[in-house]
Amino acid sequence: MGCCHYHPVGEGCDNAFTVDTSRVTFGRGCLAEVGDRARALGMKRVALFSDARVARLPFFEKVRQSLLAAGLDVVVYTDVHIEPTDQSFLAAARFATEVQPDGYVSLGGGSVIDTCKGANLYATYPADFLTYVNAPVGAGKPVPGPLKPHIACPTTSGTGSEVTGITIFDLLSISAKTGIASPALRPTEALIDPDCTTSLPGEVVAASGLDVLSHALESYTARPYVRRPAPARPSLRPMSQGANPWSDLGCREALRLMGLYLERAVKDASDSEAREQTMWAATLAGIAFGNAGVHAPHGMAYAVAGLVRDFRPSGYPDGEPLVPHGMAVIVNAPAVFRYTAEVSPERHLEAAQGLGADTRGATPKDAGEVLAREVIRIMRAVGMPNGLGGVGYTEADVAALTEGAFPQQRLLQNAPREMSRPVLTDLFRHALSYW
Amino acid sequence: MGCCHYHPVGEGCDNAFTVDTSRVTFGRGCLAEVGDRARALGMKRVALFSDARVARLPFFEKVRQSLLAAGLDVVVYTDVHIEPTDQSFLAAARFATEVQPDGYVSLGGGSVIDTCKGANLYATYPADFLTYVNAPVGAGKPVPGPLKPHIACPTTSGTGSEVTGITIFDLLSISAKTGIASPALRPTEALIDPDCTTSLPGEVVAASGLDVLSHALESYTARPYVRRPAPARPSLRPMSQGANPWSDLGCREALRLMGLYLERAVKDASDSEAREQTMWAATLAGIAFGNAGVHAPHGMAYAVAGLVRDFRPSGYPDGEPLVPHGMAVIVNAPAVFRYTAEVSPERHLEAAQGLGADTRGATPKDAGEVLAREVIRIMRAVGMPNGLGGVGYTEADVAALTEGAFPQQRLLQNAPREMSRPVLTDLFRHALSYW
Repeated sequence: MGCCHYHPVGEGCDNAFTVDTSRVTFGRGCLAEVGDRARALGMKRVALFSDARVARLPFFEKVRQSLLAAGLDVVVYTDVHIEPTDQSFLAAARFATEVQPDGYVSLGGGSVIDTCKGANLYATYPADFLTYVNAPVGAGKPVPGPLKPHIACPTTSGTGSEVTGITIFDLLSISAKTGIASPALRPTEALIDPDCTTSLPGEVVAASGLDVLSHALESYTARPYVRRPAPARPSLRPMSQGANPWSDLGCREALRLMGLYLERAVKDASDSEAREQTMWAATLAGIAFGNAGVHAPHGMAYAVAGLVRDFRPSGYPDGEPLVPHGMAVIVNAPAVFRYTAEVSPERHLEAAQGLGADTRGATPKDAGEVLAREVIRIMRAVGMPNGLGGVGYTEADVAALTEGAFPQQRLLQNAPREMSRPVLTDLFRHALSYW
Repeated sequence: MGCCHYHPVGEGCDNAFTVDTSRVTFGRGCLAEVGDRARALGMKRVALFSDARVARLPFFEKVRQSLLAAGLDVVVYTDVHIEPTDQSFLAAARFATEVQPDGYVSLGGGSVIDTCKGANLYATYPADFLTYVNAPVGAGKPVPGPLKPHIACPTTSGTGSEVTGITIFDLLSISAKTGIASPALRPTEALIDPDCTTSLPGEVVAASGLDVLSHALESYTARPYVRRPAPARPSLRPMSQGANPWSDLGCREALRLMGLYLERAVKDASDSEAREQTMWAATLAGIAFGNAGVHAPHGMAYAVAGLVRDFRPSGYPDGEPLVPHGMAVIVNAPAVFRYTAEVSPERHLEAAQGLGADTRGATPKDAGEVLAREVIRIMRAVGMPNGLGGVGYTEADVAALTEGAFPQQRLLQNAPREMSRPVLTDLFRHALSYW
């Protein structure tokens, strides 16, 4: 299957794809537009969500002032928990239920935007927490209708949450990450101001950038939509529908831009062109994976992040041990692509070429190795740890990692090859060390 | 300015771009989804818009049955006027006001989709007809709020109206085309089924395909957004905001696909791959121009179509003289690009290369000529007339054509170079004959 050939449709599989995105505004300084945009959406009383760190930065005040200047009533919530949990979601939802905003603005990384989506959902359609959570962990009930308008303003070039209908959190009772996925959760508008990234430490740009890279690589290599069983009703077609011509377009451009700019953006905070292009790549990859879905590297990452012992990355606030999301994802990626290339070698080669690899003379048999080596080259160039070993895991952890990853069936089933327990075990083992 | 470099921002100009699109479903057979999708949007009583020709085709009945099977009440309007007028818009609006649908489905070419947008607007927010019409012809007032949900199902691979917030019609009192442009007009969903194009005559695929080609070429070469004066308020940023990184992406892919598939799609109705890829290119170009805007070739086309004397193209229903829209556009294109290339030669060369031209050794000075020749090559390959002369105009008409085109300032100001009366006169003169 090349880049624009999706035929034939598999027996009993889907014959169409459905794509959607938020209204996107992109440009330096565009955070100043938030007040006018909130008013144009009909907001009068705005809940402004952020976290304690972002709330101390100048652009938080810029956003608040823009909202006030537009004549809006602003209530502030800065208690977002980084790596949110069901408990922190519920706390945010209680706040929203109490202050009754008619619109939301979120300013921060993925944790802030995801928490704001959750608060908007549970304050608009109150329900037992597990009602909307993805099955089989939750009941996976559809969101009953539209939410209140939400303008999402990302401050990192990473998650893409500003353009997706997905929110992710730790469910404390089972010590695992899960999420809620619904088009209703997609923010009404995304306001993406590359000026927000100027003050980010290089380490954060690297980890979030590799999350972006993997969004694009996973969406591009995901099981094609014509190989996914057709939904019971067309309006139930999942957002994680597999690779399709629309997501391909965003993936290819994101890969090209990351190949050109990520290393520069990591190494020189004053390289504004590189930081801007990295942020645009994050937007495109977010639009792509929001309409195609990621697969094994993300599914495995939940276990890698969840079982962390004492890894404390530099560039991140001191405190609890943490494997940053993008790092937890990318340590799995080379092992996964070595395994998945067999079913779509052209796509794996195209992806490697998009990133800048020299693929001349490469045969389909080389595809997995060529892409894996290109990802490893970029990991090393931006200071990523050497696989799972680099974040503190050993061979003795492989069984636990497998058990942690296997329940992520929503993601694993979006992979182009089977991801059984033995396969995951093999992949984790191969991901222990790359160089 | 290369493909991803939009700096610096011009003095007093815009520093951000805003993009948006309809939810898009694409795939063979997807028209069968319309009932489920309409119901999921909350529709109960649906106005189904079409024209007399389409209403006799099997897929009209397929759509009607799908709506009925979903338990919806369906009221049918098939009196759409091809090349709609203010009068035909008002007739459609009277119908909608009378039957009070809570949602719309349009099935047809640009005329049907545009008429449905107009009916939805005037039935939802009744007003004097000129209220919402683009200034200076109309008052250009903003649409007061959201319209009723609308699922647009295009049956030609052309206009892109299913994903844009633009509707075009003839204003009879001044014998000229004008339009209404508002994000509120953008259909809620586009349902794009390439099976609809199987029965199209090659001549129609050619003319609508060259409209698509020009959407992509004009959006790619339009005045960049950072050279357009900033709007009074960010929420007033026009949809015709000029070339931007988002529209560039759709343009480049549309050009690549049209270079590969248009000729095949025109020459062989049974080449389903080519017809499907041409339809996907039309969607992408529609998304692009809906967020960037077209310029001189479209602005000039209004005069070319409006002043027609006795040209009757083959492949189109007999009757009134007619220059099909795509034909009226493309006859201007080579002359325009020879003129505009001076300000962004790289983009003109990239566009030619995207279409398949060999640009090796071409210098910036050659850019206009290289792109013009590539467009002319495609025009000849798909049987287009030889410039304005080919549709019945002579040197004696140039003054009238200029006067007809000059009022299209919304489009002309989106061109990358000045489009004064003397310039337009020159361009029309150069467009009289190409080979």
